[in-house]
Amino acid sequence: MTTKNSTHPVTVLGLGLMGRALAGAFLRGGHPTTVWNRTAAKADDLVAEGVTLAGSLQDALTANPLIVVCVSDYEAFHGLLDPHGALLEGRALVNLTSGTSEQARETAAWAAGLGATYLDGVILAVPQAIATPDAILLHSGPAEAFEQYEPVLRSLGPTTYLGTDHGLSALHDIAVLGLMWSVLNGFLQGAALLGSAGVPASAFADLTTRMAATVADWTPGYAKQIDEGAYPAYDSTIDTHLAAMDHLVHESEAAGINTELPKSVKAFADRAIAAGRGGDGYAAMIEVFRTPSEVGA
Amino acid sequence: MTTKNSTHPVTVLGLGLMGRALAGAFLRGGHPTTVWNRTAAKADDLVAEGVTLAGSLQDALTANPLIVVCVSDYEAFHGLLDPHGALLEGRALVNLTSGTSEQARETAAWAAGLGATYLDGVILAVPQAIATPDAILLHSGPAEAFEQYEPVLRSLGPTTYLGTDHGLSALHDIAVLGLMWSVLNGFLQGAALLGSAGVPASAFADLTTRMAATVADWTPGYAKQIDEGAYPAYDSTIDTHLAAMDHLVHESEAAGINTELPKSVKAFADRAIAAGRGGDGYAAMIEVFRTPSEVGA
Repeated sequence: MTTKNSTHPVTVLGLGLMGRALAGAFLRGGHPTTVWNRTAAKADDLVAEGVTLAGSLQDALTANPLIVVCVSDYEAFHGLLDPHGALLEGRALVNLTSGTSEQARETAAWAAGLGATYLDGVILAVPQAIATPDAILLHSGPAEAFEQYEPVLRSLGPTTYLGTDHGLSALHDIAVLGLMWSVLNGFLQGAALLGSAGVPASAFADLTTRMAATVADWTPGYAKQIDEGAYPAYDSTIDTHLAAMDHLVHESEAAGINTELPKSVKAFADRAIAAGRGGDGYAAMIEVFRTPSEVGA
Repeated sequence: MTTKNSTHPVTVLGLGLMGRALAGAFLRGGHPTTVWNRTAAKADDLVAEGVTLAGSLQDALTANPLIVVCVSDYEAFHGLLDPHGALLEGRALVNLTSGTSEQARETAAWAAGLGATYLDGVILAVPQAIATPDAILLHSGPAEAFEQYEPVLRSLGPTTYLGTDHGLSALHDIAVLGLMWSVLNGFLQGAALLGSAGVPASAFADLTTRMAATVADWTPGYAKQIDEGAYPAYDSTIDTHLAAMDHLVHESEAAGINTELPKSVKAFADRAIAAGRGGDGYAAMIEVFRTPSEVGA
């Protein structure tokens, strides 16, 4: 059941895997949905569901007051929209294209110059998770624009507003990607280490799924310490961690595998200890991560 | 209810936080438990529960056929037991002291020379989790010894046997610790990056708890590829990851924070791409992690 108040006709530009998932989710959320794509055939399944395929990009841009863009990168975004900037006046753009915070802020300025409202956003989800509670969507830009379009954006999954700085959603995206690579690389280092003793990677993956969630559950406690600027060791001190980090370096060397990640882990702890943080808990390492790398590092 | 068959009298040496948790769990598991510690007062609560405090280390060692040791390190282990090696003949030692796989194998040889049975083990849990389903205990050494003592070891939590190589439990321990540091450092890098834009660490911790578990859930799929030696990209290719890694380096530089972790993440991907793996999925990175670092790296 859709009430009249919550219905927002929306245009979706870009019909990759993610764009198609978005358009389908808007339609099923009760919002009349128009799409356009260079390769029109990509819209076939959506059209069968009830989505409108615009005859031209111009038609798509002028069909609705709300335009959601999800293309491969900002070059594609501007390649698509720059020739038709005049059509955007008075409309709202929600840009779900991946990029940097700088690109988001530049694009916000570009949209302002055209008289368009601009919200940036990121999707922390695979296309299959769109419109499920597992999709995380983050938006940044003018609060009133978010409030206005939140009912339609919520069709895509749980939606969080981060603030007026248009760069915030991209910054969150890249921070989460960094976490992702760290988790994956930690898994790969362990899989390589255990693999040297004949242990299959699948055995370590089983431990990884159990332990990564456990460790992540400690981060709210560490975050509280970071936000308060005090790092009492309620579990292990950094000094205690260092002894075990030595084991990781030693075991990786003995196994004949790569030692860069273990040595980097230890180097961060060494620096925290040199700064007098050895007796503090692990959260005190934030000070090392906040310190710019030396030139050439 | 404890049946006669599953009752194993056990001695626990070392009454730190973890040792006390172990002794209490054995007792509550129905196993008559004897303890000894240099500071006898640490046994007070256990004695009140029904644990026997031995009058001397010799008495503790000869009280039971099974001796569980959990002390701070291998130096403490040998400092305690080396003077009384002759008392260990015919007994079984389960060593839950943290160390390297090499230390575990050396200690197994030392125990064999004394005519003692030796099982190494690690506890992937905080003391509070002992005897709950959240404690993970891993053991390595002779299979028949594990089978004999599994009923009593199981009192500590879910127990897994890894194999006859005594070094396997320490190697799993250090691989899991490496994963832990990677998760924590990924969180700290993201917290530092978002902190530069005024976002509190607690906001990123909330994302971390959600995303770390999601990412870890991908590792069984990646592990299967690693074990099969084929890495089709069922999600993103390494080439696609690299573009976003460039964003992480760029954003960290722009934020004036440390860039070593982002650059290291990118360097691994660069090497995988140079080795012709750019079109493969992330699991193909295992080949970089298996490759010894160059001298001086």
